[in-house]
Amino acid sequence: MRVLGIDPGIAIMGFGFVDKIGHRIVPVQYGCIETEAGTKTEERLRQIYEASCTLLDKYRPDSIGVEKLFFNKNVTNAFSVGQARGVLLLAAAQRGIPIGEYTPMQVKQAVVGYGAAEKKQVQEMVKMFLKLQTVPKPDDVADALAVAICHAHSVVMNERVNGVRPS
Amino acid sequence: MRVLGIDPGIAIMGFGFVDKIGHRIVPVQYGCIETEAGTKTEERLRQIYEASCTLLDKYRPDSIGVEKLFFNKNVTNAFSVGQARGVLLLAAAQRGIPIGEYTPMQVKQAVVGYGAAEKKQVQEMVKMFLKLQTVPKPDDVADALAVAICHAHSVVMNERVNGVRPS
Repeated sequence: MRVLGIDPGIAIMGFGFVDKIGHRIVPVQYGCIETEAGTKTEERLRQIYEASCTLLDKYRPDSIGVEKLFFNKNVTNAFSVGQARGVLLLAAAQRGIPIGEYTPMQVKQAVVGYGAAEKKQVQEMVKMFLKLQTVPKPDDVADALAVAICHAHSVVMNERVNGVRPS
Repeated sequence: MRVLGIDPGIAIMGFGFVDKIGHRIVPVQYGCIETEAGTKTEERLRQIYEASCTLLDKYRPDSIGVEKLFFNKNVTNAFSVGQARGVLLLAAAQRGIPIGEYTPMQVKQAVVGYGAAEKKQVQEMVKMFLKLQTVPKPDDVADALAVAICHAHSVVMNERVNGVRPS
C-alpha cells in the first residue's frame, strides 16, 4: 500500500510517498513543491495544483494523509495554507484518492509516541523510521513524511478494525 | 467590460457577474454554489471547482474581484474559506483571468461610501445600484455583487490612472 503525506503551504508544500510493506514502511520519494514569493497567489496555486497532479499521476498513492489545522498560527496564515491545501484536495478528489486528516498532535503521537513531542524529536524519528542518512530538509519535507508514517499506521489500523487483511 | 464578484465559502459561495457599460453597472447573472454539509471536504471542493469552471466558461468575465480576508472570524473558518477560495483562484489562473482582492472595508467604502457601513446598508445599496426588485438572497449573493461593484469601480479607476479609455 502506498501512502502520501502532505505538509501544505503556499511557499513550500512538503510531500512524502511511503510504501507499507508488511510491517515495514519504506520511503519512495519525498521533497517539496516551492513557489516564488513575488508571484501572484492564483499563479502559485496553479503551480501547486499542476505539480500535485504530476506527483499523484506518477506515484499513484492509495491514500493521502494531510495535516488538519494549525491552531497555533494566525488567521492570515490559516487562510493562505487553506488555499494551498484546497488545490491539493481537489487534485486528490479528481482522482478518487481517499484523504485522512491529522492534527499535529496526532502525528507526533504516531511517530514519537506522545503528542507533545518537540519538532526535532519528530524529525529524528522520521530519519530512524525510514532508515535515512540525514533528516530531510527543509522541515516541511520531514513533516510530510511524519504525516505519511502516521497515516500509514492509521490506515492499517482501520483495515484491522474493519477485518480487512493488512497488506 | 464584464466583472465577476465572489464571496468565497465552502458551504455557500456567492457569485455575481456585472457588466460595466459606460457609467452604468448592470447585473448579468448572480447566485451561489452550494455544497452539502455531510459531504467530504475534498468532494465539496471538487464541486466548487467544477461549478466555478462552468460559470467562468459560460459568462467569460474579464476580471474577478474576491474578498480578501475575514479578520473577524476564527482560524478554523479562515482555513475552510481559504480552501474554497483556493480552487476558485485556480480556475481563474487556468484561464488567465486577472484577480483583484478587497477587504470587506474596501467593499463597503466603494458601495456605501464609508468603510464601517452595516451589512444591511450594503445590501440596500446593491439593490439600488443594480436596479433589482429585492435584495438578493442569501447574504452571500448580495455580498458577491457588492464585491463585483467595488471591483468594477476599481478596474475603471485603474484604467483612467493608466490612461486607458474606459469602455
